[in-house]
Amino acid sequence: MKAIILFGHGARDSRWREPFDRLADLWRAQHPDVLIELAFLEMMQPSLPEAVASLVGRGVTHITVVPVFFGQGGHLRNDFPALLSSCQEQYPQIVLNATGAVGEDLSVLQAIIDFGARAL
Amino acid sequence: MKAIILFGHGARDSRWREPFDRLADLWRAQHPDVLIELAFLEMMQPSLPEAVASLVGRGVTHITVVPVFFGQGGHLRNDFPALLSSCQEQYPQIVLNATGAVGEDLSVLQAIIDFGARAL
Repeated sequence: MKAIILFGHGARDSRWREPFDRLADLWRAQHPDVLIELAFLEMMQPSLPEAVASLVGRGVTHITVVPVFFGQGGHLRNDFPALLSSCQEQYPQIVLNATGAVGEDLSVLQAIIDFGARAL
Repeated sequence: MKAIILFGHGARDSRWREPFDRLADLWRAQHPDVLIELAFLEMMQPSLPEAVASLVGRGVTHITVVPVFFGQGGHLRNDFPALLSSCQEQYPQIVLNATGAVGEDLSVLQAIIDFGARAL
């Protein structure tokens, strides 16, 4: 069974996570055959290891982690690979992959451009 | 003359800004009649006041600021409105507006969902 984890930074203000909850709802509506979990680097729950553990406990064998970040700075270049390796070591029986940051995707960038253009 | 400012968080790692530079390039290619500046809350240049000053110096009279953030936490609910008010006070002759965070836009969220789905 496959799953996706949308991995965000996290923030002190609980309202910060609203778009992430909307993403999870959209995913469930459009891809009901692929489980989804949110996970956060800091200040919000669950952590990435917690989300992976939850999915493994539900029988998932393939997990793709999508970093919902714009840029690839220290968090994605240093913290994230270390976290991911640690999760893979803990569950060697699963396939654990990661994509680049969503901000690297041209369609995401184009959607931002279009949003700005509509606001003028 | 109109302009748009894409306003991001900023990060220590200079590579973090690559998607922002791509956004600026996309904007210039698609909307050459509307000037664009990037601006950052911290750790990167220019700041929002610097970007506004630069545009006003080039004769811009209408500026729309688009926060390129996913969630609306303390930065967007507290720091950003204060910065924006300060800029407006400094340049009362211009029209200075702001949109919500790009993460509030359904098309942006859908592009993220589609990016994740293609990665499975």
